[in-house]
Amino acid sequence: LQVFSCNSNPSLAKSICEHIGIPLGDAQVGKFSDGEIHVKLNESVRGSDVYVIQSTCDPVNQHLMELLVMVDALKRASAGTINVVIPYYGYARQDRKARARDPITAKLVANLIETAGADRVITMDLHAMQIQGFFNIPVDHLIGIPILAEYFKNKGLSDVVVVSPDHGGVIRARRLAERLDAPIAIIDKRRPEPNVAEVMNIVGDVRGQTAIIIDDIIDTAGTITLAANALQEQGAKAVYACCTHPVFSGPAIDRIRQSNIKEMVVTDTIPLPENKRLDKIKVLSVASLIGEAI
Amino acid sequence: LQVFSCNSNPSLAKSICEHIGIPLGDAQVGKFSDGEIHVKLNESVRGSDVYVIQSTCDPVNQHLMELLVMVDALKRASAGTINVVIPYYGYARQDRKARARDPITAKLVANLIETAGADRVITMDLHAMQIQGFFNIPVDHLIGIPILAEYFKNKGLSDVVVVSPDHGGVIRARRLAERLDAPIAIIDKRRPEPNVAEVMNIVGDVRGQTAIIIDDIIDTAGTITLAANALQEQGAKAVYACCTHPVFSGPAIDRIRQSNIKEMVVTDTIPLPENKRLDKIKVLSVASLIGEAI
Ligand SMILES: Nc1ncnc2c1ncn2[C@@H]1O[C@H](COP(=O)(O)O)[C@@H](O)[C@H]1O
Ligand SMILES: Nc1ncnc2c1ncn2[C@@H]1O[C@H](COP(=O)(O)O)[C@@H](O)[C@H]1O
Repeated sequence: LQVFSCNSNPSLAKSICEHIGIPLGDAQVGKFSDGEIHVKLNESVRGSDVYVIQSTCDPVNQHLMELLVMVDALKRASAGTINVVIPYYGYARQDRKARARDPITAKLVANLIETAGADRVITMDLHAMQIQGFFNIPVDHLIGIPILAEYFKNKGLSDVVVVSPDHGGVIRARRLAERLDAPIAIIDKRRPEPNVAEVMNIVGDVRGQTAIIIDDIIDTAGTITLAANALQEQGAKAVYACCTHPVFSGPAIDRIRQSNIKEMVVTDTIPLPENKRLDKIKVLSVASLIGEAI
Repeated sequence: LQVFSCNSNPSLAKSICEHIGIPLGDAQVGKFSDGEIHVKLNESVRGSDVYVIQSTCDPVNQHLMELLVMVDALKRASAGTINVVIPYYGYARQDRKARARDPITAKLVANLIETAGADRVITMDLHAMQIQGFFNIPVDHLIGIPILAEYFKNKGLSDVVVVSPDHGGVIRARRLAERLDAPIAIIDKRRPEPNVAEVMNIVGDVRGQTAIIIDDIIDTAGTITLAANALQEQGAKAVYACCTHPVFSGPAIDRIRQSNIKEMVVTDTIPLPENKRLDKIKVLSVASLIGEAI
């Protein structure tokens, strides 16, 4: 058993290795002067079960290519099995032809990973479960909800209601609610007429409650911060938010800072650089979850 | 027949379309807030022979992914045939296992392009001709030498000698020399002992001659500027340099500026941004060459 890391999430890779109790595999993943990736494996992998840890987060194309080149190198070095661990699977939102002539990039990425030579995929909280079916190789799909639930349970909050920010997230909200023994509510976004701002109706009772909004990905944080406002307007006494994958692009951090969200709980599937850390953002680690799966 | 462009080389794509006499296909290749690429085809391609123009130059991983997503979109929009035109094929120097456990990224890239759904590849001056064999689909391989030769012929230089900067480039030098009716010389780099600087010996006579150094790729311009010095020391009366692919990364532009190279002649397979233009860098277009091939 050997574990290698590319460059997206070296600290998570280290924690995973500590959990398993083995040293991180010795490899360099760097760049030539012109930006081309080079990979150098500094130890033999012949016949070994190899795990590669890499989230395909921003810069997504570089991180994806690092993973593919690493898999190519491992394959040509006669690794026994190549298991790619993709805590955050980028391009997951391009999972269907929403409009005519759309690409289905989540499927393309699955094909690329198989073509490079992966034998098995371990990933977490895919934006659409159907992406498992885009692969012809085994996919282990891990769920972050127990980690988030554990954290909120230990906070000892009272009168909790778990809120889904849209209809697509109801199942996820129910799962968290079950673990917290709490009811759910749903944000029902409606655009009354074209070119009129969306109205956020809330299905379910939040008055006097502690709301916990849950999503899989928080990207620009527009939806989640508007939802938090709507919840407060409807009488929620406090608003928390949580997600597995803190993409946090563009205005996300400013929006979270200025929002009425009391605490934003996320995991380390995507690392937060220095300039994306706030006191009210709490990061939980998925290292032991992934360590168990390996 | 439809021609689409991704973002690496839009002005070359436009020139190619002008040469063919058709408008450039209407598509957008952009980015979401988190850096993920999105492609939008604004016209039907059903049943059509489609050409996509994209060099995989720096930022190579982004440009490669743009191409792959575009091909995916075209395939799912029922294009008749998908022909990818890659004037500069990135990762071409990773074409073999030079050391144990090296990846062969040039082959990986070929597999990725086929997996995405390309039916045919048109490319130019591959760093290694063997890369044609990395594909299972037809590869049309175009040669830039006639364009470079034409330019130098029209300059009316006297006493020309064509110089290969290394042993691997001799065939290329011979081809240019034939067209210019000139002899060749070869730079023979030798490292006398480990940790001692390389010595540039010149095989062939350059005294009193006008030297034209030719290479396929000029990247950091280290080799070529040292070669130019060595040629001058050996009595060359003037030194020109040329290549098909001006990668020009890192210190390249400074080195060229400070060098004794009188003129550097390149093509537009890779566009030169504002900050990489010098009076002594002359850019020739491959648009009509590619236009003919389409
Ligand atoms: N990286 C991205 N950033 C923002 N929107 C995206 C991204 N990828 C896909 N989308 C869009 O998000 C929508 C899918 O989201 P969903 O309905 O939540 O599955 C589609 O309309 C996509 O065009
Ligand atoms: N993008 C790159 N920049 C610099 N060197 C590279 C690059 N890609 C591959 N190489 C190295 O260049 C050598 C191959 O060059 P060549 O011998 O000219 O085919 C190999 O040792 C590679 O490791």
